[in-house]
Amino acid sequence: MATLRRLDSRSPGFRAELSQLLAFESAQDPKVDAAVQAILADVKQRGDEAVLEYTRRFDRIDASSMAALEIPHAALQAAYEQLPERARQALTLAAERVRRYHEHQKQSSWQYQEADGTVLGQQITALDRVGIYVPGGKAAYPSSVLMNAMPAQVAGVGEIIMVSPARAGDEQQLVLAAAYLAGVHRVLTIGGAQAVAALAYGTASIPQVDKIVGPGNAYVAAAKRHVFGVVGIDMVAGPSEILVICDGRTNPDWIAMDLFSQAEHDEIAQAILLSPDGDFIEQVSASIERLLPTMPRADIIRASLAGRGALIQVASLDEACDIANWIAPEHLELSVADAPAMAAKIRHAGAIFMGRYTSESLGDYCAGPNHVLPTSRTARFASPLGVYDFQKRSSLIMVSAEGADTLGRVASVLAHGEGLQGHARAAELRLKTN
Amino acid sequence: MATLRRLDSRSPGFRAELSQLLAFESAQDPKVDAAVQAILADVKQRGDEAVLEYTRRFDRIDASSMAALEIPHAALQAAYEQLPERARQALTLAAERVRRYHEHQKQSSWQYQEADGTVLGQQITALDRVGIYVPGGKAAYPSSVLMNAMPAQVAGVGEIIMVSPARAGDEQQLVLAAAYLAGVHRVLTIGGAQAVAALAYGTASIPQVDKIVGPGNAYVAAAKRHVFGVVGIDMVAGPSEILVICDGRTNPDWIAMDLFSQAEHDEIAQAILLSPDGDFIEQVSASIERLLPTMPRADIIRASLAGRGALIQVASLDEACDIANWIAPEHLELSVADAPAMAAKIRHAGAIFMGRYTSESLGDYCAGPNHVLPTSRTARFASPLGVYDFQKRSSLIMVSAEGADTLGRVASVLAHGEGLQGHARAAELRLKTN
Repeated sequence: MATLRRLDSRSPGFRAELSQLLAFESAQDPKVDAAVQAILADVKQRGDEAVLEYTRRFDRIDASSMAALEIPHAALQAAYEQLPERARQALTLAAERVRRYHEHQKQSSWQYQEADGTVLGQQITALDRVGIYVPGGKAAYPSSVLMNAMPAQVAGVGEIIMVSPARAGDEQQLVLAAAYLAGVHRVLTIGGAQAVAALAYGTASIPQVDKIVGPGNAYVAAAKRHVFGVVGIDMVAGPSEILVICDGRTNPDWIAMDLFSQAEHDEIAQAILLSPDGDFIEQVSASIERLLPTMPRADIIRASLAGRGALIQVASLDEACDIANWIAPEHLELSVADAPAMAAKIRHAGAIFMGRYTSESLGDYCAGPNHVLPTSRTARFASPLGVYDFQKRSSLIMVSAEGADTLGRVASVLAHGEGLQGHARAAELRLKTN
Repeated sequence: MATLRRLDSRSPGFRAELSQLLAFESAQDPKVDAAVQAILADVKQRGDEAVLEYTRRFDRIDASSMAALEIPHAALQAAYEQLPERARQALTLAAERVRRYHEHQKQSSWQYQEADGTVLGQQITALDRVGIYVPGGKAAYPSSVLMNAMPAQVAGVGEIIMVSPARAGDEQQLVLAAAYLAGVHRVLTIGGAQAVAALAYGTASIPQVDKIVGPGNAYVAAAKRHVFGVVGIDMVAGPSEILVICDGRTNPDWIAMDLFSQAEHDEIAQAILLSPDGDFIEQVSASIERLLPTMPRADIIRASLAGRGALIQVASLDEACDIANWIAPEHLELSVADAPAMAAKIRHAGAIFMGRYTSESLGDYCAGPNHVLPTSRTARFASPLGVYDFQKRSSLIMVSAEGADTLGRVASVLAHGEGLQGHARAAELRLKTN
């Protein structure tokens, strides 16, 4: 049985094959779009009443008021305190490490003064209020709650409002405990486009937020795309991916399991290995065959590996870096002797896991960095979710009388050149001799 | 003649009136959307051929090849060198100041090591390739070219490709000169959704870029919204706005002209004054009446002031700050005695112009900060265009053998809690005793 396709970078059709393997564009379904636009318009106009109606229709929860859909803050703390000891300790340690790492991302205001007294700079402030979308069902991970809300808390966001469709008791407890640790202020059991609309436009019971982050289904993604501009949004996430580069000297079972840990997310997740060592690729393949039947989520893993996985033999580790830069993977594992030297050659990746001991799964939970990362080649231009996503900048400009004179003359020439005489005259009025 | 509406913050209906005055949501026209989607799909499939066809149809330029639509790089330098002396000096000084300011925004990679040897950090890299959209017609400003391209150049972007519909000779020369100073690598005279599509998907003659920035008409805005995710985009810009807070001790002519300099952009631009001093508001009003007939763009200014402008009397300067934070203006002028103290109370503004000498127009051209700023209340969550928009981050994680043991145990507990056994086992395999 061949679970994974094998590719060789030296074969003539390689780039085309690789291109096809990576191809993934989340379709923007016109029907979903039309439904979402109707929901957005309705919630914008009728507020809470519309949210309650859609919650009744789509989530089958018949609440008489928004208050009935809100989880009191005391319940978050209670959920945390009632967790089993081991789970509570692990979650607490993860939260502390995530917080500590993100503290390093805080940006500070800066300014400088020029010889004539002119002051220039940027003032950095936190967002007032953000919404965190936490999906229902199998994707409702406590670690996701931590990773989405913690950077907002570290940034100093005034109010963090979490929305999430209702779910079963035990799952809910872990999610609420994570919300407690991450400093979430309010939790509402609403979801879908109606929750996005409520956060984006505000209703009588939910104040308008400034940004909405967190993953969701096609309706949530379409809703976020539409309200972009009214509020800020994070990236629209695609399927999760890992690219492992290995020199052939890591335990092949470790590499196989790293590929599984990505593939087990869902059938469209992507796990790819690049190695210059053909024998090692055989060993990893054997590990995969041997270990796969022992995995509880074997069916998902098998489908994912068969559909979108690959073991690729490359000419050299340098070539592997080139391919990695082209792929711009969400997760990049450098399982090689000198990983930092190799990392310096990587221009595009969401997160770089360096060295044989650094399994990607540590990064998902507790190493400290955020696990919300750019997918589908968007690491070419996007960054991990971070504190910087919950801070923004205002330019600071204070021109001295002297500066107004020198700069005013320049502005006047350029403004007249663009035919904007009001701009020119506003500068000219402040010249020393006009 | 009452050119501007007067409001008073102490009147009962004030907040509602202000809300209505600010209301502006760029409609997403379904017809524009459908046309744009068709163009995007076509260019994605047929590449250059489709771009040439649309350029023929919409821009009335019949080019036989993309090469015919490209302006050779030597032409940029020539345009710069042939500028009249004064214009060239002004543009050069502006470019130097913009460059110097933006150098302060460059972010650097960082990392820290923990006691057990684990290394965490972020690696910061520039985008490989970006597209700058420069609109045709009256909005084709050389200063915009500078402001959009310079941060990319300072960030170290490998290739900057400018697209812009063709225009008349003289205007073109200033735009090309600015492109030269800002380090633009290629210039193509294409525009509209077809130019956005070519940049987003790539064609035989235009490589796929990683991000597209710059303002455009409704078609360009819709196209950018659709390709968001395939490439990065900047904010969708709304009408330009200024909010002036004045204590009543600035020359009223200066304030009037500052309001004009915003209003002259177009009929939907917004200029608002807040002052606690009723007499001063009268004086500004008188200045407006007296100066308006002297302005070459008087018709536009009058329409803009009448449609969306206001002179607002407030109870105090503190209340003015509260209102400013609610408005989150693109440009905020603090024409008061102690402007830095007041700026510290401002949480949301694109750019803050401090002191009586700092006219907004200096910021548009040559003070140094970027003039691409968040509009329509988006300063609540967005920042001026900057070097940070052309850099992105990769998380760095290197766990020591010791760290893999401690962190692995935590990750294992949390991964089992989420039902992701592959994640758990990838961590467990690396424990010291497993």
